[in-house]
Amino acid sequence: MPNIAAYYKGDHRFELRDAPVLPPAADEVQIEVAWCGICGTDLHVFHGAMDQRVGSNRIIGHEMSGTVAALGAGVSGLAIGDKVVVRPLKPCGHCPACAAGHSHICHNLKFLGLDTDGAMQRYWSVPAYAVHKLPDEIPLDLAALVEPLAVACHDIERARLAPGETVLVIGGGPIGMLIAIAAAKRGARVLLSEINLSRLTLAASFGIGAFDASKTDVAREVMAATGGKGADVVFEVSGVQAGVDLMTEAVSTRGRVVMVAIHAKKPVIDLFRFFWREIEMLGARVYEPQDYEAAIDLLVRHGSEIGRVITERRPLSEIQIAFESFEANGTSMKTLLNCQEGTAQ
Amino acid sequence: MPNIAAYYKGDHRFELRDAPVLPPAADEVQIEVAWCGICGTDLHVFHGAMDQRVGSNRIIGHEMSGTVAALGAGVSGLAIGDKVVVRPLKPCGHCPACAAGHSHICHNLKFLGLDTDGAMQRYWSVPAYAVHKLPDEIPLDLAALVEPLAVACHDIERARLAPGETVLVIGGGPIGMLIAIAAAKRGARVLLSEINLSRLTLAASFGIGAFDASKTDVAREVMAATGGKGADVVFEVSGVQAGVDLMTEAVSTRGRVVMVAIHAKKPVIDLFRFFWREIEMLGARVYEPQDYEAAIDLLVRHGSEIGRVITERRPLSEIQIAFESFEANGTSMKTLLNCQEGTAQ
Repeated sequence: MPNIAAYYKGDHRFELRDAPVLPPAADEVQIEVAWCGICGTDLHVFHGAMDQRVGSNRIIGHEMSGTVAALGAGVSGLAIGDKVVVRPLKPCGHCPACAAGHSHICHNLKFLGLDTDGAMQRYWSVPAYAVHKLPDEIPLDLAALVEPLAVACHDIERARLAPGETVLVIGGGPIGMLIAIAAAKRGARVLLSEINLSRLTLAASFGIGAFDASKTDVAREVMAATGGKGADVVFEVSGVQAGVDLMTEAVSTRGRVVMVAIHAKKPVIDLFRFFWREIEMLGARVYEPQDYEAAIDLLVRHGSEIGRVITERRPLSEIQIAFESFEANGTSMKTLLNCQEGTAQ
Repeated sequence: MPNIAAYYKGDHRFELRDAPVLPPAADEVQIEVAWCGICGTDLHVFHGAMDQRVGSNRIIGHEMSGTVAALGAGVSGLAIGDKVVVRPLKPCGHCPACAAGHSHICHNLKFLGLDTDGAMQRYWSVPAYAVHKLPDEIPLDLAALVEPLAVACHDIERARLAPGETVLVIGGGPIGMLIAIAAAKRGARVLLSEINLSRLTLAASFGIGAFDASKTDVAREVMAATGGKGADVVFEVSGVQAGVDLMTEAVSTRGRVVMVAIHAKKPVIDLFRFFWREIEMLGARVYEPQDYEAAIDLLVRHGSEIGRVITERRPLSEIQIAFESFEANGTSMKTLLNCQEGTAQ
């Protein structure tokens, strides 16, 4: 089979062409990619916001699933045909974060699919340590959700979320929605603050208490729903000032705020309330191996339900349309590209 | 003995007069106050900043020591003459914070010496549950440091500080200094950021690595001192924007920031770095009973050394001069009032 690959060429433009297929190097695994989701980071690339990092001849993509096509020398524990996903992190192994056991947020972290070529192609070779084997029963399209779901599982782990606690998720995009779903499956009572109607509707369909922040005082609703206590855990996934304001207003005394969003601009923050209520805030970024296992386990148990976040599927050959329509369409949640249906143009 | 008491009358003014001495009510303990320190909060009162809360006929003071003078009905476990200190918190017992076991930050918390009359008088009656008995060997002047030292112990407990960790304290006033000292006694390596020369000198005399933030890039110094890792724990005690900037720059990946300062104005904050480095921030306010016991234990072991933070002692009759000279004098750290040397004016 030819290796059809989608190259990001800069300025909102992808180019499809045959990429060379090299046999996997030692300690590498060659994967025949099945599906690859479009991540928010991929959209940033599409906008040109990451050109300095990714260049203009890069195969992006990391929310993927596939099967093992070939094994490099020295790889054990995997067999040709195994269903797999990839944890796309390449730590340096010697920085202070790696030395302290936090290699997932290595100070020199390379991200596969941004700093190296990624999964929006048919054949992708990756380091064997990054590969997680899937149970046979997970369909490969759902398996493309493992990576973003692992982000959600990591965030929930950072929150030390316990069953029965009340959670507020601020921002119902793909990550916020998966956090809300995963928290609900963990036995939490979940509330969500959003302004997009289709996201509010989707959240409600998962049994999540969805509040339209454009019409409602969400902090007041959270207080009313908790007898004045506030949310035990707040996930800030909005990345905007209003979200930062809401998080300090709606969290309980000694509650935990998990900082999931990327705040490119420094917001103002009510530090007095952090002091007064002994609030805790925890940054949370990407995932650790156990978060992948937790995400896989969630998909085994609730895959078809969670799969409802997939709002569009297209062949890789339609990548350009897929990115453009994702942006044009206010009801998009998660678009998957079928990397086995690509043809060079 | 007459009960000489110092009444705050508003607008930087105290008035000394005999106050009535009532026998302690049921479940109360009457204490003959020995010493009472001047807290930063007392200075706020002096400035008129808390008139709405304290009124203009209030005996303030809570950083105290004394001996039991009389016991109300139903009080057990204490005897006349026992050396004691008071944990000046009166929780409501039924708010969400109390219900969750965090009564020290009760939503309706009353503070003895602000919301009720306090310790700047000779005889003070308080609820028995608020009294901590002291070992005989602690001199009563040093015992007046238990309350601020309990704040420091609470902050260190919130930080989960472990021996061998590197600590940065931002702000070397009385609380920052006591945090730095207590952290050093816990086996941490302690660095301090300050701009006041006498505080820098005092810190250095305790073996603390004191940096003059007006002349030095403290974040760079912390990185240099930790091989690029950053401080495991940062205590933000400055309450200013520069302190908030420094805390996010100087803390390590997965490090803990303890928010001790009262930020009356909302600062801007680098939330991106919280996300990127998975930083944790913990609000910390007042203390719990075990923090009092930890502070007492520290004074038993290191009392004479810690006592060096006491920079001035005056009879209660000189309270007006004590407050005025504390403010005029840039080298003041902790002033104690001797409440057994007061005379009405």
